[in-house]
Amino acid sequence: MSFDDIIDFHGTHSNKWDMMEQNTGVPSAEGLAMWVADMDFRPPEGMIRAVTDAAGRGLFTYFGDLGEYEASIVWWMKTRHSWDVAPAEIMTTHGIVNAVSMALEAYTRPGDGVILMTPVYHAFARVIRANDRRLVECPLSLKDGMYAMDFDTWEGMMTGDERMLILCSPHNPGGRVWTRDELRAVADFARRHDLILVSDEIHHDLVYPGRKHLPMPVAAPEVRDRTVVMSATSKTFNVAGMHCGNVIIHNPALRSAYQKRLSQLSISPNSMSLRMTPALYSPEGAAWVDALCVYLDNNHRIFVDGINAIPGLRAQPMQGTYLAWVDFAGTGMTREEFSARVAQGAKIAANSGPAFGAGGETFLRFNLGTSRALVEEAVARMRHAFRDLQ
Amino acid sequence: MSFDDIIDFHGTHSNKWDMMEQNTGVPSAEGLAMWVADMDFRPPEGMIRAVTDAAGRGLFTYFGDLGEYEASIVWWMKTRHSWDVAPAEIMTTHGIVNAVSMALEAYTRPGDGVILMTPVYHAFARVIRANDRRLVECPLSLKDGMYAMDFDTWEGMMTGDERMLILCSPHNPGGRVWTRDELRAVADFARRHDLILVSDEIHHDLVYPGRKHLPMPVAAPEVRDRTVVMSATSKTFNVAGMHCGNVIIHNPALRSAYQKRLSQLSISPNSMSLRMTPALYSPEGAAWVDALCVYLDNNHRIFVDGINAIPGLRAQPMQGTYLAWVDFAGTGMTREEFSARVAQGAKIAANSGPAFGAGGETFLRFNLGTSRALVEEAVARMRHAFRDLQ
Repeated sequence: MSFDDIIDFHGTHSNKWDMMEQNTGVPSAEGLAMWVADMDFRPPEGMIRAVTDAAGRGLFTYFGDLGEYEASIVWWMKTRHSWDVAPAEIMTTHGIVNAVSMALEAYTRPGDGVILMTPVYHAFARVIRANDRRLVECPLSLKDGMYAMDFDTWEGMMTGDERMLILCSPHNPGGRVWTRDELRAVADFARRHDLILVSDEIHHDLVYPGRKHLPMPVAAPEVRDRTVVMSATSKTFNVAGMHCGNVIIHNPALRSAYQKRLSQLSISPNSMSLRMTPALYSPEGAAWVDALCVYLDNNHRIFVDGINAIPGLRAQPMQGTYLAWVDFAGTGMTREEFSARVAQGAKIAANSGPAFGAGGETFLRFNLGTSRALVEEAVARMRHAFRDLQ
Repeated sequence: MSFDDIIDFHGTHSNKWDMMEQNTGVPSAEGLAMWVADMDFRPPEGMIRAVTDAAGRGLFTYFGDLGEYEASIVWWMKTRHSWDVAPAEIMTTHGIVNAVSMALEAYTRPGDGVILMTPVYHAFARVIRANDRRLVECPLSLKDGMYAMDFDTWEGMMTGDERMLILCSPHNPGGRVWTRDELRAVADFARRHDLILVSDEIHHDLVYPGRKHLPMPVAAPEVRDRTVVMSATSKTFNVAGMHCGNVIIHNPALRSAYQKRLSQLSISPNSMSLRMTPALYSPEGAAWVDALCVYLDNNHRIFVDGINAIPGLRAQPMQGTYLAWVDFAGTGMTREEFSARVAQGAKIAANSGPAFGAGGETFLRFNLGTSRALVEEAVARMRHAFRDLQ
C-alpha cells in the first residue's frame, strides 16, 4: 500500500464520496470530495487481517476481557505521547461527539456556559445547543497567519456561569499544534474560572515532522484533576465509521461521574472495535502513522503554497491534521460567490466556514487526507476557478 | 455449517466462554457455558462475506446512505412479522439496553414508576434504577407451568405515578410467546393507566414451529400511538457484540422525542453493522432462522424433558428463545446449595435467578443456544449432580 494509490470509493457506502452530490451539489462523476473528515487511505494491514480473521471465524458475540485492548491504549499513549495512563482511567464511548455529549450531561447543567475557541469543529456547538447549554464562542486571533489564543479578550467575556471549556488540540480546522506555553495558558484560564477542561485530542497522532503534540495532562499536570481527555483510533487510522473512542480521566471523582452516565445509558464498545484497537496501537500502526504524517505534511505544503499563489486566497499554514482552512475574504466576493466557484467551478466539495462558528464566515475547509495527485488536481482546479484574479 | 458443529470459542475473546471461570467460578477447561445470552453458532455466510469483503477493501470510514439498510428492515418486518414499517419510523441505537435507557430519559422523569413483569431480563431493572426511576415489579403467575399475566393483581399495585411498561415479547426467561389475547390485555392495561408501552421484541424471530410472534402494533393497533418497539439482528443471528439495535415508533410525537435524545447524545450506528444488516435480513437469513428455530425447539425438548425427569427440578416448557428457566424449589435446597451443585457439581455456568427480579429466587437460567451434543451433556451432568434425588 502506498498513500499515492488512488482508491475509488464510489459505490462503497462512503459518506464522503457517495453522498457528496446529494449533500453538496458537487457532481459525483467529476467532483473531488474534500469535505467529510476521513481519509482516502487504506488502514494498516494488521488491523484488516484482525477483522477479516475474526469475521471469517464468525466471531460477533459479546466480547470478554478488555485487558489487551486497554494495554494497547496504555502502550500507545506512553510510547507515542509520553503520557502515563492506567487501564482503570480509560472509558470507551461511541466516538468524540457522543463522548462530549456525555461530558456535558455529567459535568454541567442546562443554562451553564460552555466555551469553544472558534472557529472549531462544528459538532461541538451542535451538541452544546442540543443539550440546552449556553454556547460561549471565544474567538481565536491570528498570529503569523495561524490561529492563536486571545485570553485578554476572553477574560472580559466571562460571566461567571461558565462551567466547561472544550479545547481542540491539535486544532481543527487549520491544524495548529498548540505549544506547551499555550496549553499552560489554557490550564491557567481553566483554573481561574473553575472550568472542567475537555481536551479533544482526536488528531493527536497527526502532527507533522518536527512538531510534538502534548496531551493536556502532560503539558499542564496542575490541571490533571479537572481534565477530561478524548482520543480515538478513528482519525489516526481512518476508521471513524466504527464509532469507537476513548475518554481518559485521571481524577477519580470526575471519572466516577462519567462512568455513571455510561452505566445509565448502557454505553459499551462494539466487539469489532475492541479487536481492531490492539492491531492499530501497535509497532506496525506506529510506522504507518509516521509515514502518514510525512505524506500529509507534503500534501499540506503543496496545497497551501498552491492556494496562497492565488491572489485573494489565503490558506493557513498547518502543523498537523489534514484539514486545511482557506480564507476567501481577500477576493472581495460574497460567501455565495466564492462557495459557488469552488463547488460548481472547481467541482470540489469543501466544508462551509460558518458551521465552525464565529470567525469562519469567509472560510472553507478542505480535506487533504487523500493521494498527492488529488491534492495537486484540487490546486489546479482552484487556480482555474479563480483565474480572473491572477 | 450445521448447528451440530461444535465450535471451540476458548481464546476468542468470547465473554461467554473466556470469562466464565472468572465470573461464575465454573472451570474453563471442563465447564459448559450456558450463561451469557449468545449462541455457539456461526452466523449466516452471506453476512460473513459482506464483512470480510468490506474489511478486506479497507472500508471503515463514515457510512453514507441508509436506504438499503432501512429497506432490509422494512422487508424483514413485513415478510417475517406481517408488520408494515416505514423507513422514517426506524431509529438505530447501540442495542436494547441502551435503547431502553434513552426511552426512560425521553418519556419519564426521575421518580416515575416503570413497570416490569418479573422475572424478566435483568438489565431492565438495572437501568431503571440507574436512572432513578421507581421500579414496579408486577409478578407473572403460572398457568400450565408457564408464565401468565395477572392483571387482577397488578391493578391493585398501581399508584398513579406509573408512566411506562416494559414488555418482553417473547419473554426472557422461559420463552413464552404471548398470544394476541394476552397482548391485547397488555394494551388495555397500558391505556387504562396511560402508560408508554415499550415492547422489547428482540427475540421475535426465535419462536418454535407452530408459534407466531405478533409485534405489539400488529396485535393491538389501538395502542400503536403509545408503543415503542425494540428489535435487532443481534439475538436472531448471534451478532450481539456489534451493538446495533432498532427502535421503531409509529407515533410522530414519540418518535421526535426519541430522536431528540439520539441527537443530544450523538448516537448513530457503526458502519459494519450497517453493512451486516441487509445481508442478515435477506432470504438467506430467513432460511437460516427457519432452520435455527427447528433446532432450538428440539434442543428445548431434550433439555426440558431431561430436567423434568429429575425429581424436584422443573423446567418451564418453552415456545421460543433459547433461554430456559429452571425452578429448583422442589429440591428443598437453599439457593446456595442448588447453585453450587450446578456450578461445581455439573460444572455448568447458568444465570442466577434473583437477578431477574421478584419470582426468580429459586431459579437458574440455562442458555440452550448451542449444539445438541452440549445440551445432552448438560442434561446428563444435571442428572448426575442431582442423582441423590432420583
